[in-house]
Amino acid sequence: MTTAPLFNRIALIGFGLIGGSIARGARAQGLVGEIVTTARSEKTRARVAELGIVDRVVETNIEAVRDADLVILCIPVGACGPVTAEIASHLKPGAIISDVGSVKGAIVKDMAPHLPKTAHFVPAHPVAGTEHSGPDSGFAELFINRWCILTPPEGTDPAATDRLRAFWAALGAKVEIMTPDHHDLVLAITSHLPHLIAYTIVGTADELAQVTESEVIKFSAGGFRDFTRIAASDPTMWRDVFLANKDAVLEMLGTFTEDLSKLTRAIRRGDGEALFDHFTRTRAIRRGIVETGQDSAAPDFGRPHANLKK
Amino acid sequence: MTTAPLFNRIALIGFGLIGGSIARGARAQGLVGEIVTTARSEKTRARVAELGIVDRVVETNIEAVRDADLVILCIPVGACGPVTAEIASHLKPGAIISDVGSVKGAIVKDMAPHLPKTAHFVPAHPVAGTEHSGPDSGFAELFINRWCILTPPEGTDPAATDRLRAFWAALGAKVEIMTPDHHDLVLAITSHLPHLIAYTIVGTADELAQVTESEVIKFSAGGFRDFTRIAASDPTMWRDVFLANKDAVLEMLGTFTEDLSKLTRAIRRGDGEALFDHFTRTRAIRRGIVETGQDSAAPDFGRPHANLKK
Ligand SMILES: NC(=O)c1ccc[n+]([C@@H]2O[C@H](COP(=O)([O-])OP(=O)(O)OC[C@H]3O[C@@H](n4cnc5c(N)ncnc54)[C@H](OP(=O)(O)O)[C@@H]3O)[C@@H](O)[C@H]2O)c1
Ligand SMILES: NC(=O)c1ccc[n+]([C@@H]2O[C@H](COP(=O)([O-])OP(=O)(O)OC[C@H]3O[C@@H](n4cnc5c(N)ncnc54)[C@H](OP(=O)(O)O)[C@@H]3O)[C@@H](O)[C@H]2O)c1
Repeated sequence: MTTAPLFNRIALIGFGLIGGSIARGARAQGLVGEIVTTARSEKTRARVAELGIVDRVVETNIEAVRDADLVILCIPVGACGPVTAEIASHLKPGAIISDVGSVKGAIVKDMAPHLPKTAHFVPAHPVAGTEHSGPDSGFAELFINRWCILTPPEGTDPAATDRLRAFWAALGAKVEIMTPDHHDLVLAITSHLPHLIAYTIVGTADELAQVTESEVIKFSAGGFRDFTRIAASDPTMWRDVFLANKDAVLEMLGTFTEDLSKLTRAIRRGDGEALFDHFTRTRAIRRGIVETGQDSAAPDFGRPHANLKK
Repeated sequence: MTTAPLFNRIALIGFGLIGGSIARGARAQGLVGEIVTTARSEKTRARVAELGIVDRVVETNIEAVRDADLVILCIPVGACGPVTAEIASHLKPGAIISDVGSVKGAIVKDMAPHLPKTAHFVPAHPVAGTEHSGPDSGFAELFINRWCILTPPEGTDPAATDRLRAFWAALGAKVEIMTPDHHDLVLAITSHLPHLIAYTIVGTADELAQVTESEVIKFSAGGFRDFTRIAASDPTMWRDVFLANKDAVLEMLGTFTEDLSKLTRAIRRGDGEALFDHFTRTRAIRRGIVETGQDSAAPDFGRPHANLKK
């Protein structure tokens, strides 16, 4: 980036997978004059200081937001309300305040009431991640070619939304705007339900009397191992997501359960035609995902293979 | 391999992902004197001839098995019975006959009654695959560090089992022996149920009124895209698996459904503690899978990332 920074000073509250990836990307792209960050624990703060990616690591959230032009909460969904209450009166007038939470309706409800009129509130959710967390897990490329959803409340200054859009675009993301409620429905099916299902089936496998854990592990390459990756995601983050997006998740779960009953009936009846039809229809979506660059075309996600020993 | 070939002539009936991977691996390792293959359609046979991996492509199953020391059926589970009936009386006395089917109980029941006493029947299932199929999809490394399960019926000559074990080991696989029934239970949880769940949720997403297909595709990186890979697998193969392993799949489905109801109740009640506990327990299996080399330790299966544009 040879142009001027988009923001003079940004504050990242929380430095895990997402906060750490924003910091690394913003640094690499020269998007900001100064990056100030903090984390809840002394341990994480010390590690972030050691990593040397940001300009300053401070002890408190209040210190972090001082004079920041952009403040991003990169913490679990359930922590966003209390942290906003704490920092609200310390925000620089005219600052943009945002977040990265995987749920938007609850976040808007928890954060908005605390915020002063002089702050521009533009909630955000980058739809990108891995199963890892903590200060070492982030990387500058995480958001490239992924979508970042902004859900500015009615009446938000369009200039603020545009500045945040430019920031995410410079991190490599494509930006889309929608309402918090629609976001929560879309993510319920594309992210929250898949996680719930994965957490469930891994739990089921873990507790079977007929099959040992060692067998589950050995023979996991038949499909199960994919689900274990998702089910290794951070428990705090996901607890908060399901508590905060309860209604949309329960709605999608209802539809999923009905569909599962239909396939179960087809299996019970030995209805090969119904199974074949269903399994044929589901291929189109994969094609769409690969064609739009939302996943790799390589077989098996491009997992590496060793060489044959001669 | 500098030693003598393990088999003078092998016949691969069916040349898709699995047959094609066996052929490529056996060739690369010099495991066999001659590879003869056939496929159902003229189109596949022509393509296999063009690929030039095998010694001979023949028109019929009967021609293929003539004088072969090892015959492997690499075709859908439901086709194994009829094809065995066709070739049984043409098998070379002393030949080993095997398969690669993802279900074992039904295959043994379908194949064994046709086989002459002079043939050694050693059913096999390599627990390895990708979502692709057809003659071009195979590769020599597919079986490396994966398990291949053998389910020899009682009374099988141990020497025949050992020869097949050596063959799979030379393709890079680790070999385990179990009963067909136990195989079918283990695979029901590690492979068949994950596929059914993935096929279900992708179907659910496809038919939602509230969320468009284009939105599902765009925001699939939140977890959903993983399921679409599995749900892009071959419909014929999977129809046959669910028809042939009905009882074990229904049993695992019953347990899964109960577990899903428990988590659903926890979400409905807002029981964060129950959710957190469950999400914490499921991480151990992932660790086991990575530590034993059954999956990559790289985040997100090591999916590639583009570079940031400056
Ligand atoms: N992971 C994903 O795939 C993903 C994708 C998109 C969006 N998100 C969203 O991004 C947010 C952060 O997720 P992440 O994956 O970056 O998590 P993470 O790696 O676990 O990092 C979380 C950060 O938040 C801090 N924190 C935790 N609890 C806190 C509290 N009660 N008050 C203040 N700070 C607290 C942590 O500090 P300590 O290290 O000191 O505990 C840490 O710095 C979540 O809202 C999540 O929904 C995640
Ligand atoms: N895919 C996996 O991940 C995986 C993993 C482990 C085991 N398996 C098992 O391996 C077997 C083959 O799977 P694959 O993935 O290799 O399938 P594939 O790529 O679709 O190849 C199947 C082969 O079988 C032939 N075939 C299909 N129907 C037939 C019939 N009714 N009679 C005779 N030949 C027929 C096909 O011939 P045409 O091309 O001419 O149609 C093709 O050569 C299945 O039993 C499956 O359960 C698969």
